[in-house]
Amino acid sequence: MLQHDDFKSAIDKYKIIFFDAFGVLKNYNGCVPGVERTLEYLSQQQKEYYIVTNDASRSPMALAESFHKIGLDMISHDRIISSGMLAKEYLDLKVSEGIVAYLGTLNSAHYIDSSGLHTLPVSAINSANIDQVNALVLLDDEGYNWFDDLNKTVNILRKRTIPAIVANTDHTYPLTGNNDVSIAIGGIATMIESIIGKKFIRFGKPDSQMFMFAYDLIREKKPVSKKDILMIGDTLHTDIMGGNKFGLDTLLVLTGNTLPDDAETRIKTTGIVPTYICHSAVID
Amino acid sequence: MLQHDDFKSAIDKYKIIFFDAFGVLKNYNGCVPGVERTLEYLSQQQKEYYIVTNDASRSPMALAESFHKIGLDMISHDRIISSGMLAKEYLDLKVSEGIVAYLGTLNSAHYIDSSGLHTLPVSAINSANIDQVNALVLLDDEGYNWFDDLNKTVNILRKRTIPAIVANTDHTYPLTGNNDVSIAIGGIATMIESIIGKKFIRFGKPDSQMFMFAYDLIREKKPVSKKDILMIGDTLHTDIMGGNKFGLDTLLVLTGNTLPDDAETRIKTTGIVPTYICHSAVID
Amino acid sequence: MLQHDDFKSAIDKYKIIFFDAFGVLKNYNGCVPGVERTLEYLSQQQKEYYIVTNDASRSPMALAESFHKIGLDMISHDRIISSGMLAKEYLDLKVSEGIVAYLGTLNSAHYIDSSGLHTLPVSAINSANIDQVNALVLLDDEGYNWFDDLNKTVNILRKRTIPAIVANTDHTYPLTGNNDVSIAIGGIATMIESIIGKKFIRFGKPDSQMFMFAYDLIREKKPVSKKDILMIGDTLHTDIMGGNKFGLDTLLVLTGNTLPDDAETRIKTTGIVPTYICHSAVID
Amino acid sequence: MLQHDDFKSAIDKYKIIFFDAFGVLKNYNGCVPGVERTLEYLSQQQKEYYIVTNDASRSPMALAESFHKIGLDMISHDRIISSGMLAKEYLDLKVSEGIVAYLGTLNSAHYIDSSGLHTLPVSAINSANIDQVNALVLLDDEGYNWFDDLNKTVNILRKRTIPAIVANTDHTYPLTGNNDVSIAIGGIATMIESIIGKKFIRFGKPDSQMFMFAYDLIREKKPVSKKDILMIGDTLHTDIMGGNKFGLDTLLVLTGNTLPDDAETRIKTTGIVPTYICHSAVID
Repeated sequence: MLQHDDFKSAIDKYKIIFFDAFGVLKNYNGCVPGVERTLEYLSQQQKEYYIVTNDASRSPMALAESFHKIGLDMISHDRIISSGMLAKEYLDLKVSEGIVAYLGTLNSAHYIDSSGLHTLPVSAINSANIDQVNALVLLDDEGYNWFDDLNKTVNILRKRTIPAIVANTDHTYPLTGNNDVSIAIGGIATMIESIIGKKFIRFGKPDSQMFMFAYDLIREKKPVSKKDILMIGDTLHTDIMGGNKFGLDTLLVLTGNTLPDDAETRIKTTGIVPTYICHSAVID
Repeated sequence: MLQHDDFKSAIDKYKIIFFDAFGVLKNYNGCVPGVERTLEYLSQQQKEYYIVTNDASRSPMALAESFHKIGLDMISHDRIISSGMLAKEYLDLKVSEGIVAYLGTLNSAHYIDSSGLHTLPVSAINSANIDQVNALVLLDDEGYNWFDDLNKTVNILRKRTIPAIVANTDHTYPLTGNNDVSIAIGGIATMIESIIGKKFIRFGKPDSQMFMFAYDLIREKKPVSKKDILMIGDTLHTDIMGGNKFGLDTLLVLTGNTLPDDAETRIKTTGIVPTYICHSAVID
Repeated sequence: MLQHDDFKSAIDKYKIIFFDAFGVLKNYNGCVPGVERTLEYLSQQQKEYYIVTNDASRSPMALAESFHKIGLDMISHDRIISSGMLAKEYLDLKVSEGIVAYLGTLNSAHYIDSSGLHTLPVSAINSANIDQVNALVLLDDEGYNWFDDLNKTVNILRKRTIPAIVANTDHTYPLTGNNDVSIAIGGIATMIESIIGKKFIRFGKPDSQMFMFAYDLIREKKPVSKKDILMIGDTLHTDIMGGNKFGLDTLLVLTGNTLPDDAETRIKTTGIVPTYICHSAVID
Repeated sequence: MLQHDDFKSAIDKYKIIFFDAFGVLKNYNGCVPGVERTLEYLSQQQKEYYIVTNDASRSPMALAESFHKIGLDMISHDRIISSGMLAKEYLDLKVSEGIVAYLGTLNSAHYIDSSGLHTLPVSAINSANIDQVNALVLLDDEGYNWFDDLNKTVNILRKRTIPAIVANTDHTYPLTGNNDVSIAIGGIATMIESIIGKKFIRFGKPDSQMFMFAYDLIREKKPVSKKDILMIGDTLHTDIMGGNKFGLDTLLVLTGNTLPDDAETRIKTTGIVPTYICHSAVID
């Protein structure tokens, strides 16, 4: 299985394709050259495709715009399923009043805001309003002072018995150029969990809820079976693990987190086995 | 919120009720006295109810029979959603050929068997057939020699890069009478994970897939929203955590794992907050 | 055992006393009222005492000065054993050349500096000098920009295969007044460990090396047995756990991390049992 | 550094050598061919050597005999420092009366027995004597029925607030021949910890107490500095990690747990760096 499979032959067997975004369709330079032809081919073949992404920092609208800027104009916002959508659904269903405190940029909060809840940055929580905080959401690693606001987050969660939500399971994300990484909000969540001894509610791959959300969206339009769907990703423990567990066939590409030289070792040591391995999501 | 809520008033607000089994409807002595009246009341009110249980040791048929023996004749097998059903669905979708090795009783394997796969107890795996083992499933803590077969399980998973599945997240279950517990298959799975350094695929509450499976079953019959469903359980980190995360309202009863004296402390230290707390699932 | 023991009767049985600092001798207001009489009594009785503290942010000299400021003038620097001393010993023995990068204040680095090594704050590491970095030490939670320097720390440790040291196992420390806490450098170390997948070398209680360091210091002066020493602390999983494991008798005081109402529950749930429990380290 | 160092040149720089046993001096076939010449050379050079081993299943006497049987007659029992010796010291210092329950063979218990305590196998604990159990020790993976006695161990530790000790940090040990492993008592301890939520007291490398015990033994005879000692082992996270942390120079051999092809990758991913790497502990 560790010889590479032909990408076009693989996708030809399925009616619906789920793509991870970063490391599959785009990287820090822009789009992965040639993936636009893959998306065009899928449209010609009248196959549906969706972007299933662990991103809670922006709305699907804003995410779609970011694809358009790098030449992937065909990706409309209704093709995007983000973990931020799950965080928003959770707040809609489970938090009916009061303040939702957040760590992130103003932009990331705008999306959550639309639930009709009162959102405030962690920095704006004080002794006068802390008793009205009914949920805390970790959205992004930017937009606030780490020393001040991470310490404040710890103290809010020690005082209030409320759900704490993080919609990104990644610990780091790659920075441009020189192989450096940046600590992601998922890594910050892990630190705060270990300090306060409570578990965050985590959305995002490999959690099944991400796949279920996408699956439900499709079934509203037409009947479909899990056998008809292929999940394509660059990361074993999110894309491939999550797709496998949900019952989908999975395809690993080597243009992102999993390097060509490491793939075999990583699959063996983790026990996470994709159905196919391809160089990239590009049709030759 | 920590004063107790009235059980009847709570369930009257929902169209569909999910019950955990152990600690809610039954305990080691038989059924929780009076729950039969609750189930009769739900039927009179034409409300649907389902049993959502972390049990992979028997088929829904066999689980239904065990309810009938303790006087809960109204629980038909089609009202039961077990984590074993998810394990079976996974094997149906993802393992098309070869041997599925298992730890458990012959009875537990019969259910998996029906997938058409060749199931063999771990004790029957040897150098002649190990290369055909394509999945390993942990079903039950009984039916085999621990020393021999846990050691064998470790070695199978070191040699074969295959999915390992466990459909029970509990570490222990209560024994009859004197407050003793028994190590559950979920606890054994944790030991084997730490030894081989690979993660098992875990089904069962709090995983969303359990709730989704039940939710899908209902929606095949009639349209329903998450707002219409109440999850009732005795365990914070499975029933309540899982129900909350899936977006359901939740009700904690104090007839099982969470004792009346501990409830407040446990809710505070875990941060897992049920919508309601009631003494039991019995209508006064 | 959970009725309180008489403090004076307990210490009278031992020749040497080890005290934890924070929560035992001092708190955020200054010294615990009355402990100065305990120290005077020990001197009158010609008993030795030592302060065994998880503090890497200052030298023993500077730590002694901080005791003098709150009225405990009798605590000379040669009675202080800090986890910072172990970090310094490690660097002396194991890192003979190159740069030691650190997170902390200039003051905390001065102490390490005296090893003759070239110390630089993480913020001063760049592509020109990174190849000379031969160790990384986490000293304090202050003195740097968290966003910039925690991210930089992650990237230094991804690029350099070097020892990373942290001399404080605490995840938080109490702030003045309103029951708030601050994230300690030990909590930051845990986050960075989980992100880079490598283990820090941790000094500080409960690690045996702290107790051994103190024990060796005493034995240089006169023969002594572990049976002659009592460890007094306010924290079960550092002071009491560490003292017990090293073979010392232990005494828990309730003036710090372990509150009077919680002591019994915490001892039961952790299984960490002190030899004595006293209200405080003050002689009535 | 990853080119191999010359073994003789390395040991010539030190006055005292610590050897790990399994994977360095012996393996499942008997002694590593040629190590007898190394030990003879050390004697000729009037250098001290000690065996520092994570073994709690037998006394130093019995361990010495096992070396004699494979041709290493020069290893006298007073050169052996085992983690079992630390467990015994702990019981001597900290448990003065009552029953010490154990998991292991009768042989393993004989050694602990000599502390004058009443030792009983876990299988002999019942409702009549459980209140006298004052410590629980995990000695070996053999000598008892796993299903019965691991379950019983969990229940003893739920009922009694007592120290639980394990003197082996290894999760598995190699079996003869075909690359299979067996679950070690350290792996069993990890399972029981995760089930009962309490931490065992762990002796054995990488814990500093092992090295301190050996270091103290030497210093009773003559003055010595940590700079004079070299720790030789085959396992990064016990021998090398522990030696490094204690301040010793370390030498990794490739005749045991760390395979020649893996050494470089493992050192990079763990960040545990030995001072030297040699093919084996044999002088060419």
